[in-house]
Amino acid sequence: MAGAGEASAQALVGSRAADVAARIDAAFDALLAEPDDARARLYQAMRHAAIGGGKRLRPLLVEATSDLFHLSRVSALRVGLAVECIHVYSLIHDDLPAMDDDDMRRGKPTVHKAFDEATAILAGDCLHDLAFEVLADEETHPDPFVRIELVKALALSSGPVGMAGGQMMDLEAEKTRFDLATVTRLQNLKTGALIAFCVDAAAIMARIPVDARTGLHGYARDIGLAFQIADDLLDVEGDAALAGKALGKDAAAGKETFVSLLGVDRAREQAHMLVEQAKAHLHGHGAEADLLRAIADYIVERDR
Amino acid sequence: MAGAGEASAQALVGSRAADVAARIDAAFDALLAEPDDARARLYQAMRHAAIGGGKRLRPLLVEATSDLFHLSRVSALRVGLAVECIHVYSLIHDDLPAMDDDDMRRGKPTVHKAFDEATAILAGDCLHDLAFEVLADEETHPDPFVRIELVKALALSSGPVGMAGGQMMDLEAEKTRFDLATVTRLQNLKTGALIAFCVDAAAIMARIPVDARTGLHGYARDIGLAFQIADDLLDVEGDAALAGKALGKDAAAGKETFVSLLGVDRAREQAHMLVEQAKAHLHGHGAEADLLRAIADYIVERDR
Repeated sequence: MAGAGEASAQALVGSRAADVAARIDAAFDALLAEPDDARARLYQAMRHAAIGGGKRLRPLLVEATSDLFHLSRVSALRVGLAVECIHVYSLIHDDLPAMDDDDMRRGKPTVHKAFDEATAILAGDCLHDLAFEVLADEETHPDPFVRIELVKALALSSGPVGMAGGQMMDLEAEKTRFDLATVTRLQNLKTGALIAFCVDAAAIMARIPVDARTGLHGYARDIGLAFQIADDLLDVEGDAALAGKALGKDAAAGKETFVSLLGVDRAREQAHMLVEQAKAHLHGHGAEADLLRAIADYIVERDR
Repeated sequence: MAGAGEASAQALVGSRAADVAARIDAAFDALLAEPDDARARLYQAMRHAAIGGGKRLRPLLVEATSDLFHLSRVSALRVGLAVECIHVYSLIHDDLPAMDDDDMRRGKPTVHKAFDEATAILAGDCLHDLAFEVLADEETHPDPFVRIELVKALALSSGPVGMAGGQMMDLEAEKTRFDLATVTRLQNLKTGALIAFCVDAAAIMARIPVDARTGLHGYARDIGLAFQIADDLLDVEGDAALAGKALGKDAAAGKETFVSLLGVDRAREQAHMLVEQAKAHLHGHGAEADLLRAIADYIVERDR
């Protein structure tokens, strides 16, 4: 899928993503220091899931949007850490036998495989709390009003009107045939809401009024959907070894996806169109938005 | 277990508890209005678990402590609602087959029995988010600093250094024989931390400095432990029909409890001693602390 100028997008995203990933790993290492008591196994399970792996796309998005407003790298990293706590908790719970029943994640056994189901449920629950604990700490931002806005936005984007609501729709998708509008709504909740939070969090920290965030919200909505279409394409065409998880599961479960509803070619066209539209939303910004533009390109070019 | 003056404690607690329970039910009814889409089942599951049942001891504690400082009933109820979101989510997850594998709760089938495991996991996750969403909303308290302190305190008391950490120790208790000190620590985390939050939340809203909360913290610690000892006694001697759940499970699982370690008589003595000690912590307060005193008595007198 890579074209001419897109190689530089990959390079720009790649170097920043590696830097963010290293700092997120270090932050998790500090946050999840193993206690010397009967909770050790719980922390081992959280560390297994949280450290060393993943694209860290969400923390990268927080940082890229924070760059627009010259925000503190410390604040951006801590918000990225909180989002990653939510993302990792959701992967642990989604992988459970009662949910998607996956054995591999990020090239490693899933938490309930490496540990057990009860530990996996609790490790997810604990990371869920840690997200809010991280946001609430004054190290994240000196202004309590900013911190409480971050908490409110994260709770909304993770819960029943966000990610978890989307996962519920995803479970129902195995029983009902969804149309394109419903699949779009499902994905806007399941993946889009948390991606939108990453962009919105930087705007909250920069104290940008809500009505001045239209462009950023448009960017987030478009890359969120493009990300999911690219995921659906990878599920059909991707390499399981690179992905580090089982592929082809949606088709096997009889779930409608963007690819099943649009076909491969139209789905790919749609993803590219969304990326162009996402970048158009950034027209008011100069070079300081180059990383956000590169992330939009990267989202449909990635091979995992 | 009831004595002379204790009948009036039951009556005082009973009338306020019924009032709090009705308002918590109404608040859950509004919070969990069923959407007209594929998430309906998720909301039905949350409503099944959250509405109509339970002693609502935690919201009552928030309200009783708020009375000490003449705080707004609206604020107290919303904090109580948030704590109850956490408490209900933890019951849903703890009842799962991979955890305590319980079929009945509050006299009704558990969520994974009435619905299914995947829906139960998600319903718990969503209530977990809703707790923080409720706290973060300005309706809970006008001061963002107070709200963010509430969020931080709730995240700490629910997560790996609180309730969920205690539940992990409880799982390990089936594999190792814990001594009295370890069982005490387990219960301080598993039940005590959230009970302590209820009392601390009122102090946070009243902007009482941390070093002036020693008495309240002592009260909370003592009733938390007394509550757990009473639970252990009910597990051995209680009536499953009144409790609305299976009893005798700890002994069957070979877990050490206060009763197995101390025996029935010494455990009961210990609970009563803790209740007296809890009330002694309130010596600086007059009649405005009578409900807190009555709650302490009620905790060891209850039959469910």
